[in-house]
Amino acid sequence: MTTLYGLGTGPGDPGLITVKALRILQKVPVIAYPASLEGDSLARRIAAPHIPPRRVEVAMRLPFDPDGRADADYDRHAETLAEHLAAERDVAVLCVGDPLFYGSFQYLMTRLAGRFPIEVVPGVCAPTACAAEAGVPLTSRDDSLIVLTATLSEETLRARLDGIEAAAVMKVGRHLGKLVRVLDRLGRLDDAIYVERAGLQNSRILPLARVEDDEVPYFSTVLIGPGIGR
Amino acid sequence: MTTLYGLGTGPGDPGLITVKALRILQKVPVIAYPASLEGDSLARRIAAPHIPPRRVEVAMRLPFDPDGRADADYDRHAETLAEHLAAERDVAVLCVGDPLFYGSFQYLMTRLAGRFPIEVVPGVCAPTACAAEAGVPLTSRDDSLIVLTATLSEETLRARLDGIEAAAVMKVGRHLGKLVRVLDRLGRLDDAIYVERAGLQNSRILPLARVEDDEVPYFSTVLIGPGIGR
Repeated sequence: MTTLYGLGTGPGDPGLITVKALRILQKVPVIAYPASLEGDSLARRIAAPHIPPRRVEVAMRLPFDPDGRADADYDRHAETLAEHLAAERDVAVLCVGDPLFYGSFQYLMTRLAGRFPIEVVPGVCAPTACAAEAGVPLTSRDDSLIVLTATLSEETLRARLDGIEAAAVMKVGRHLGKLVRVLDRLGRLDDAIYVERAGLQNSRILPLARVEDDEVPYFSTVLIGPGIGR
Repeated sequence: MTTLYGLGTGPGDPGLITVKALRILQKVPVIAYPASLEGDSLARRIAAPHIPPRRVEVAMRLPFDPDGRADADYDRHAETLAEHLAAERDVAVLCVGDPLFYGSFQYLMTRLAGRFPIEVVPGVCAPTACAAEAGVPLTSRDDSLIVLTATLSEETLRARLDGIEAAAVMKVGRHLGKLVRVLDRLGRLDDAIYVERAGLQNSRILPLARVEDDEVPYFSTVLIGPGIGR
């Protein structure tokens, strides 16, 4: 039976793909990836140095916010992949970071489970990549770490960040001001470091308290931990 | 200047090391790793297929619970690494999973920062590897994920797991009974899946409600998410 693979590409640096994902990527005949409506794909850009010539590529165009509500789109893309699989062509879906950590792969997986074997190869995800780039520990000893998105309401953010040792806040974008307010009120601004484009050449890392932008890119992260923002 | 590298090996499958970590591992003259007092090292076992012959190896023997309080041990191991670095030999420290996610690398990093350049290469960590192996999503949309250790008190576990969409509970071991009680009282036993030895040949995955052991290995994980334990 042919297999549907979900391959984590890591968060940006092409070197952060795993050896296992690389081997699969280089042997499958069909490579698929989520793409914007204009056809641009971060997953494809990350994996580009590893993609052999003469492969069938499937750009799965999706509306910007991959919130899983684009049901008709996922139905359609899943059927395209199913046609390749039914014709005995293995398919690898490239996933930024890890396939099952805030990714769209799960929406393909649920549609194709039971019809074809599915194998997921995990990848390096943004919180650990950001900690590596910033050179700060993410979790120690028996600390808890919460991973959440800055899109949550101010009240929810505050409740979930209150009293926790460590946090990674994803999708900061236009929610920067709200996040700064929440951390300031919790007395934790000095515990927060801002990481933009981890692993890429134009990455930017500085204490959150020193970020002066009104708004930052969608794919930026704030890490919180004892004293790391000083 | 010579460099101290912290290399994530991934959680168990040797194929889950990144291409970047592999390249560094294969060029450095000195390879160090945490080891038990008896000399056994999970990090070395994971990386074994990738270690070239004729390298200097440093087994950093540490007491079982790597809680960072073994200050004298870390002082001593850091000085051993510093001697190699001062003699212009690059040193790579192998770290199970990711170097800065519940790892001991941070205790070496704090001791050697400022004296030598340090580069951390992130790795695949246990929560995403467990989700991949179990074939269940870890986080969707704007869900929050909490990562915590089962070593926490029953009250703390209950408070931190209450109302959260997704969780990864690490270091389950002899705390299994307590964790099951907490999840049962929160009405979330059907949302929990048990993963033992993710990525290894003898891995074991089943709904938490069906685990009948009194105690499980230290390196086992419970994932929590809507309906994943059914």
